[in-house]
Amino acid sequence: MKKVEIFDSTLRDGAQGEGISFSVDDKLKILQRLDDFGVAFAEAGNPGSNPKDLEFFKKAKTLELKNTKLVAFGSTRRKDVSAETDDNVKAILDADTEYAAVFGKSWRLHTEVILNVTPEENLSMIRDTVSCLKKNGRKVIFDAEHFFDGFKDSPRFALSVLKTAEEAGAELLVLCDTNGGAFPDEIARITEEAVKASNIPIGIHCHNDIGCAVACAVAAVKAGAVQVQGTFIGIGERCGNTNLSTLIPDLQLKLGYDCVPSESVEKLTETARYIAEIANVKLAGSMPYVGRNAFGHKGGMHADGVAKEPKSFEHIPPETVGNSRNFILSEVSGKSAVLSKLKNFDRKLDKSSPETVRILKKLKELESMGYQFEAAGASFELLILKELGRFQPFFQIEHFHVISTQSYDTKEINKANAMVKIKVGNRFEITADEGDGPVNAIDRALRKALEVFYPRLRKAHLVDYKVRVIAAGDSTAAITRVLIESTDGEKVWTTVGASKDIIDASLKALLDSIEYFLHVKAEEARKPTSKKTSERIG
Amino acid sequence: MKKVEIFDSTLRDGAQGEGISFSVDDKLKILQRLDDFGVAFAEAGNPGSNPKDLEFFKKAKTLELKNTKLVAFGSTRRKDVSAETDDNVKAILDADTEYAAVFGKSWRLHTEVILNVTPEENLSMIRDTVSCLKKNGRKVIFDAEHFFDGFKDSPRFALSVLKTAEEAGAELLVLCDTNGGAFPDEIARITEEAVKASNIPIGIHCHNDIGCAVACAVAAVKAGAVQVQGTFIGIGERCGNTNLSTLIPDLQLKLGYDCVPSESVEKLTETARYIAEIANVKLAGSMPYVGRNAFGHKGGMHADGVAKEPKSFEHIPPETVGNSRNFILSEVSGKSAVLSKLKNFDRKLDKSSPETVRILKKLKELESMGYQFEAAGASFELLILKELGRFQPFFQIEHFHVISTQSYDTKEINKANAMVKIKVGNRFEITADEGDGPVNAIDRALRKALEVFYPRLRKAHLVDYKVRVIAAGDSTAAITRVLIESTDGEKVWTTVGASKDIIDASLKALLDSIEYFLHVKAEEARKPTSKKTSERIG
Repeated sequence: MKKVEIFDSTLRDGAQGEGISFSVDDKLKILQRLDDFGVAFAEAGNPGSNPKDLEFFKKAKTLELKNTKLVAFGSTRRKDVSAETDDNVKAILDADTEYAAVFGKSWRLHTEVILNVTPEENLSMIRDTVSCLKKNGRKVIFDAEHFFDGFKDSPRFALSVLKTAEEAGAELLVLCDTNGGAFPDEIARITEEAVKASNIPIGIHCHNDIGCAVACAVAAVKAGAVQVQGTFIGIGERCGNTNLSTLIPDLQLKLGYDCVPSESVEKLTETARYIAEIANVKLAGSMPYVGRNAFGHKGGMHADGVAKEPKSFEHIPPETVGNSRNFILSEVSGKSAVLSKLKNFDRKLDKSSPETVRILKKLKELESMGYQFEAAGASFELLILKELGRFQPFFQIEHFHVISTQSYDTKEINKANAMVKIKVGNRFEITADEGDGPVNAIDRALRKALEVFYPRLRKAHLVDYKVRVIAAGDSTAAITRVLIESTDGEKVWTTVGASKDIIDASLKALLDSIEYFLHVKAEEARKPTSKKTSERIG
Repeated sequence: MKKVEIFDSTLRDGAQGEGISFSVDDKLKILQRLDDFGVAFAEAGNPGSNPKDLEFFKKAKTLELKNTKLVAFGSTRRKDVSAETDDNVKAILDADTEYAAVFGKSWRLHTEVILNVTPEENLSMIRDTVSCLKKNGRKVIFDAEHFFDGFKDSPRFALSVLKTAEEAGAELLVLCDTNGGAFPDEIARITEEAVKASNIPIGIHCHNDIGCAVACAVAAVKAGAVQVQGTFIGIGERCGNTNLSTLIPDLQLKLGYDCVPSESVEKLTETARYIAEIANVKLAGSMPYVGRNAFGHKGGMHADGVAKEPKSFEHIPPETVGNSRNFILSEVSGKSAVLSKLKNFDRKLDKSSPETVRILKKLKELESMGYQFEAAGASFELLILKELGRFQPFFQIEHFHVISTQSYDTKEINKANAMVKIKVGNRFEITADEGDGPVNAIDRALRKALEVFYPRLRKAHLVDYKVRVIAAGDSTAAITRVLIESTDGEKVWTTVGASKDIIDASLKALLDSIEYFLHVKAEEARKPTSKKTSERIG
């Protein structure tokens, strides 16, 4: 099997994504997880442009990485300065990593308009920087920035940049499509030329500006590239980088390349979700392989087909990447989808079992009240557990009061206030809190009361809150459906509530989220030996 | 320039996406917008599996479409039934569209395991259905389901399916990668074979399960396909369909194909955002071409580079697709778009008028607070009128109080109560009302107070109320954006409000709705001779 090295830049290029801001601690956590997963390289910072990164590199030394080589990133020296005295080169050396990645210009436009240097000076900047790093014991990966635009403009110019880095002692030359505008066939053709012209290995670094980053990386690998740079969940500047959680299974499961330890592939989904959690981004439900809905089947026909023969509507078995099949429940999907879910709870249940009939009836009733379980697997599981008599309630709400008030003399928005009383066993707890709006206020008050009894609730929090108003008419009085997505950092689950009243609907979804979490934790405590699964439960 | 037809399936395959649920009215709106944009075909429903779709097709007839041909979708007849008596085929005919798309099986596995029919019976089902539709005056597009998996298994089997549909009178054969597992080079190779083997045009339909849908569609076009099926913002079952908002500029701007009227390309961003709004999905900030951040520059180096020479870090100028550089949240705030709207109010305004500068600044400020004006034309007009000093306030809110309370001894949900005090001229009115939930309560109380002064308000009512939570984090406290659609039975207008507090956001959208209505009525009263229009204004 042909080997392809995975070079993850979540902590460097990923940090350029909109809304991404990693603390040193976040970075250490993600690096540890990348190592557990088994990527070959992790580019983790640009110490020259971000002084905070030096602290990270210092701390990262204390981690014992098994699989992953840490890489510090930076630019080649500035013009009119020697590499030895260039602040950025010094910062790369200070990071004290085995590998350093430096980028240099390979598009004439950039040397002329952005750097304002002659082609010769550009080559000197590259030569000096690579050899200085090499002299100081670093293994050097050279990123040829804008290589494809540069090659299209002048092959001679672009290739001279590669040759210079190679001669100065680089280990590997990375062809970067920095603007993300090249198509897979261009990438393949130009990569082939670069492979032919070089005596050292070639890598590929793509962006997704035309929606082709993964296809471009695959095309480059087929053309001879042996390293792929990207970010684990695709985050990065503008439209993002090659999504490694898509690329890795594409190469390893479908095209037979060897990228990561084979036992890692089934940790793919768990790892992607963990990184999303630390990065504080919502993973798209539709993300290939790892999304909540990547193996979801909504249409009755597809759901029936998969029940008969999984590969009829699935390109790979979802378990191979640690994801799971998800029969999306809706009026469109028939009995068989519900039945296959029921079988997870009790193998003996069939189409005509009284439990099945009762649950189907209950489902219809709830759907007619505005519920929809297609994206709310946790609420659906709770419903089944309750109908099967296998759910132990953890608490009860006695009453709540929410007050929103606003005076328009002041420009400030007042906080909403909520008071709630709950009962756990024979004990009562009454408390209050305030929040931005009535739903936030009641969420906070309820958690405050419950944490007295269940401190572990602190681990669970909301990641998304969606409101949909259904049925027209006098529409602020129509039915409101609320979907809440929650996580404890490992699992993700989704719950639903529906009501004429948005507060009531929100509260129902919140209660399901909390009950589900408490139930799952209680079940885990009961079976202490059962190994954790990364199975999707919402 | 080579022509490629765009076939949009947002309203059919897109409706299979997780959490997507279109009302008939939503579908009509999106269809109208697709026609304005200029796609060649819109596949808008599966009347056989969804009876609600027949109502849609009936209403869709009243639209005068300029560019787009409406398509009804369904499966070939079932086994053991004639096409003429098959319910699904009858439903397609009932939809009464010029074009019909039917899908048939082209993978042996499916005929054997899913349908349980012989290859001959499978061909008969296809032949009968296509010729029955043709006999009844329909132009038939044939979707060869699982064509690529089918071809890899048996080229002869897969091609016999195409041949049969062609001979039965289909106009076009669509190769579907239904499971989404094929790579661009496989797609190219197999499409080429199909083009060679067929005497009628070939189309392509891809899914994004390996992250390559756009690249696959481009590869098929280069191999001879002349129609691309997809959904405008990529929504669809599992990982979604080919994203047309990426594919169209890829083909038209970068590869020189002719897909849509050239003046439509700059409406791309606006159209994508409108469709996302109606579908109630959040458009990823990183979505190629149309995402909020598709041309965002975070890295200082890139931002500087772009300032010196845009093409140094941008693969196309963002204006060409109606997007913009500077993290601007909304298409509307591109200077030229705003200016063209301003000209409707005052022909003398130009780019450097102080009013233009002020309005642009205000827009940016509101967008950074979570507002978005794409789908809220009435709020946008009000904003301009206010900034131009041409808006006369009709009332003022002094304060309000809303109380929601719930006791869980009773099963009934209590009504929420709202009290509001307003000022009109020098007169005050204070009143209260109750409603289903806090938003409904305050809506009712506010109208009750206002109708004392403006009885004509009774004519105006809400038809839709949409809530979107933006920005992640502690999500019940994130920013809430509310869109309200209102009507007086003649006109329809849409307004927007944004706030951390859902009540405050709803109230802002409500106030805009009421102010807009009062203003328009006042203007009409001032010009009593102006003829009434039923034009859509929001």
